[in-house]
Amino acid sequence: MTDSLTYLKENRDRHLALLHDFLRIKSVSTDSSFKGEMTKAVNFLVDYLQEIGFTEINVQETDKHPLVYAHYHVSDDLPTALIYGHYDVQPADPYELWNSEPFEPEVRNGRIYARGASDDKGQVFMHLVALEALMKTNGTLPINVKVCIEGEEEIGSENLYTILKEKKAQFDADFCIISDSGMVEENQPTVLYGLKGFTGLEFSVVGPNRDLHSGLYGGAVRNPLMAMSHILSTMKDVNEVVLVDGFYDDVEPLTKEERSLMAEAPKEDYMTSLNIQETVSEQGYTATEHTMARPTLEINGLFGGYQGEGTKTIIPEKATAKLTCRLVPGQDPDDIQDKLVKHIEAHTPSGVTVEITREPLSAKAYKVDFNHPLINQAAKSYGKAFNKEAVFVRMGGSIPVVEWIDDIFDIPVVLLGFGTPDDRLHSPNESFPVENFDRGIVTLVDFYQQVPQLK
Amino acid sequence: MTDSLTYLKENRDRHLALLHDFLRIKSVSTDSSFKGEMTKAVNFLVDYLQEIGFTEINVQETDKHPLVYAHYHVSDDLPTALIYGHYDVQPADPYELWNSEPFEPEVRNGRIYARGASDDKGQVFMHLVALEALMKTNGTLPINVKVCIEGEEEIGSENLYTILKEKKAQFDADFCIISDSGMVEENQPTVLYGLKGFTGLEFSVVGPNRDLHSGLYGGAVRNPLMAMSHILSTMKDVNEVVLVDGFYDDVEPLTKEERSLMAEAPKEDYMTSLNIQETVSEQGYTATEHTMARPTLEINGLFGGYQGEGTKTIIPEKATAKLTCRLVPGQDPDDIQDKLVKHIEAHTPSGVTVEITREPLSAKAYKVDFNHPLINQAAKSYGKAFNKEAVFVRMGGSIPVVEWIDDIFDIPVVLLGFGTPDDRLHSPNESFPVENFDRGIVTLVDFYQQVPQLK
Repeated sequence: MTDSLTYLKENRDRHLALLHDFLRIKSVSTDSSFKGEMTKAVNFLVDYLQEIGFTEINVQETDKHPLVYAHYHVSDDLPTALIYGHYDVQPADPYELWNSEPFEPEVRNGRIYARGASDDKGQVFMHLVALEALMKTNGTLPINVKVCIEGEEEIGSENLYTILKEKKAQFDADFCIISDSGMVEENQPTVLYGLKGFTGLEFSVVGPNRDLHSGLYGGAVRNPLMAMSHILSTMKDVNEVVLVDGFYDDVEPLTKEERSLMAEAPKEDYMTSLNIQETVSEQGYTATEHTMARPTLEINGLFGGYQGEGTKTIIPEKATAKLTCRLVPGQDPDDIQDKLVKHIEAHTPSGVTVEITREPLSAKAYKVDFNHPLINQAAKSYGKAFNKEAVFVRMGGSIPVVEWIDDIFDIPVVLLGFGTPDDRLHSPNESFPVENFDRGIVTLVDFYQQVPQLK
Repeated sequence: MTDSLTYLKENRDRHLALLHDFLRIKSVSTDSSFKGEMTKAVNFLVDYLQEIGFTEINVQETDKHPLVYAHYHVSDDLPTALIYGHYDVQPADPYELWNSEPFEPEVRNGRIYARGASDDKGQVFMHLVALEALMKTNGTLPINVKVCIEGEEEIGSENLYTILKEKKAQFDADFCIISDSGMVEENQPTVLYGLKGFTGLEFSVVGPNRDLHSGLYGGAVRNPLMAMSHILSTMKDVNEVVLVDGFYDDVEPLTKEERSLMAEAPKEDYMTSLNIQETVSEQGYTATEHTMARPTLEINGLFGGYQGEGTKTIIPEKATAKLTCRLVPGQDPDDIQDKLVKHIEAHTPSGVTVEITREPLSAKAYKVDFNHPLINQAAKSYGKAFNKEAVFVRMGGSIPVVEWIDDIFDIPVVLLGFGTPDDRLHSPNESFPVENFDRGIVTLVDFYQQVPQLK
C-alpha cells in the first residue's frame, strides 16, 4: 500500500497535468458540432489505458459517440470489477457566466474549474490513476478489471443499453463501481444506495402559420404562448404536487426508518448556496425527502416569440417546452411518459395543435442493499482516506447505466462519488476540489486492494 | 387633375425605383445596431422633400432616432394638413423564413416584398409622391402642408409626444392624415374610424443564483419556468377572458348599432390565411368584435432555460415574458399597466421573485365621428380611385400618435390606409400590392385637391 501511496505522491503533478489535458477536450455530446472533440477524448483514454498496461482495449463505435472498453485479466480466482464512467460533458453555455474558460482548466482556492471537472471526467480519471498506481507498484492489479467509459451519458446513454445487452459476456463482472456522484457536504464521505429514474419529452404548441401582428389578429387567434402556459400550469400545482393523472400511482412509499435517516442526513444550506429565500417542496415532504426519494417534474427549457431587445407586438406561431421527470422505485419510465403525453393532449386548448417528441431513452430508479460487503468496504475505504465516517444516502440524480447493469447483469453497483455540493454540475463555473481528487484516488486504491479479501 | 394623373403615369417607374431605394435602407428602430441605417433613411427623406420643392425642412434630433419635419405654406386662407408617417420598421428576424431578402425589394405577382413595404415606408412615401405630382403639375399645392415622419413608431414613438407638445405651434394644423393601416380585404377601400390603445410590460421570474442540476435540486427549489407558467395562466383563461382584476372596468360597451355594423363588415378567412382550425375569441364576442373593439392581452415572447439541441436537465435560474395589451375607448393605459403589475406581484408563488420593466410609452384608444366632412371626402376619393365604395371600420392596431394628436391639437385624424390583410405586417415576407401603391397615390392627389372645397 505504502508503495502505491508513495508512487501517487511522486507522480501527483503529472497526474494533475494529465487531468488538465483531459478537461481541455470539449467533449460535448449534446451538440453534434463537437464531434471532433469527442474523438479526441476517446484517443486520450485509449492512449492512457495503453500507458497503464491494459492490453485488451477496443473502441466500440456507435451511430453517435464511441464507447471505450478495456480489460485486464489477472486470474480466474479473483473477482472482476466493471468500472463505468463517461467522457462526455454538458454544454458549457452560457459562456459569459464563466469566470474562466470552461475548457481551459484553472485551479483557484483548491478547486479545478472546468466543464466536466466533477461530472464525470475528473472522477472517472481518478479510477485510471488508481489502476496506474497499483499496476506500476505491484506489476499487476489486485483484481480483474473491465473498464467501460461511454460518451453519451449527458444525452441519455443512447446506445449503451444495446451494447451491454448484446455483449453481455464481454462486460460481465462480479460487481460494478461508478464515481459519478458526490458528498452530501464538503468532506463528508458519502455512499449512494439509491438513484432516481428518468424520463422526459419535448413538445411544441403550434398556432398560426406565421408570427402575427397582435393588433390586427389579437382577439381572433389562440396565442401559442398562452396556450403553453395553460398546459404547463396544469401539470404541477403551486404546492409542487404533480397533477398528471396516475403520476404517483406506483410510487414506493417512504418508510418511517428512511424518513428519520433522511431527517438526520447532513443538509446543504440552499438559502445561502443558491441565494433563495426559501426551499419549496412537495406538500407533506421535506426538501431532503423530495430531492432524495420523491419523483419530480421539471421544465428545463421554454421558448417562443420575440426574445430580442425592446418590444415586438406579435402573436408567435409556436411555443416549445422541454420537460424531464426524475422517478423513484416503483415508477415505470415508459408508463410515466405515456401519462405525460396523455395529459398534454388532454389539456391542449382549441385553436392550436401540439407536436410531441418523446425523450428516446429513460431509466428506472435504483436501490441497493447497503449491508452488502462491497458497499460496506467502499464506505470503510472512503472514510479512512478522508478521516471521517461515511454516510449512506439516496440521491435525485439519474445514472441510467446503474439501472441497466442491475437489469442485465444483476450485480451490485458501488456508487462511490467524490463530488461536492458546490461543484455546480451542469452550470457555469463547474469545479472539483483538488483534495478530493487526491484522497479519492487513495480511496480507490485501498478499495481495490481490499476487495479480494471480502467474504 | 388629368395633369397630375398624366404626370404620375409618366413618372411611375421612377417613383417605384425610388420606393425600392427607400425600402433597401435597414431602418430597424428596435435594435440599436441599425443606427447608421436610420440616418440613411432620414437623408433619403430630406433629399426627396427638397426635390419636391419643400423649402422649410428640418431634422429634429432625439436621444434615439430623428424626426423629419417639412412645411409648405401656400396661403393663410387655406386649411393646413399635418401628414404623419414613420420611416422605421420592425426587425426582420427570423431571416430564414423570408423568400427574398427583407431589405432587397422584389416584385412578385404584383406585390412588392420587403420589410416596411406596407408598414409604413411604402404608405408614407405615397403621400410624398402625391405632393410631388401636385407640385410639379400646378407649381404649388392645393393646401398648406406640414410633414412629420418619425423613426420611433415601432418602439412606441418614445420622443414624439414631447416634441409635438413642446413645438405645438410648429406642428399645429386643421387636420391630420395618416396612411399606416389597411383595407379589411383586397380591393375594399377602408376608412378607419377607431384604433385600439396600447400598453405593456416585460417581467422576469428569478429563482436560484444559477442553473441547477434537476436531479440534485429538483424537489427543493421553485422552478422559475413553472412559476412563470402559473403566473401567466392566471392572466387569461381558456375562454380568452382576461382575469386581471378590473381589466374591463372602464371598457366602453359596444352599441347594438356597432355590433351589427361589424357583423356586416367584410371578414378575412382566418382559417385559410393563417392555417388554423378555428378562431378563438373572448367569450360572448365574435372574432370581428374582439379584434376591432374589445381589449386584448397577449404574450409576445417567453423564454428561459435550455433552448438548444437535445436535452439539458436543469432548473433554470430565470424566466422572462413580454406582454402587451391592446386597449379600447374608456381604458387608461397607465391604470391597466398598474393592474398588470399588481396582478403579477399578487400571483408570484413563494421561492422566486419578479423583476418588472414597464413599457415606457403607451396610448389611449381613439375614435372619430365618421360623419365629419373630411372623413367622408377621404372615403369618396378612396372609393373613386379603387372603383368601389369605401367601408368604415375600427381596427385592433395602435397608432399612439393618433391619440396624442387628438390630445394635443384636438383636430380630426383621417386614417386612410392602403394595406391589405395579406401584407404580413411585422412578419417574414411583408409585402404591399403595386396596384394599391398606384391607386393610393391617385386617392391622395384627389383628396388633397378636394379639401379646400369642403364646408
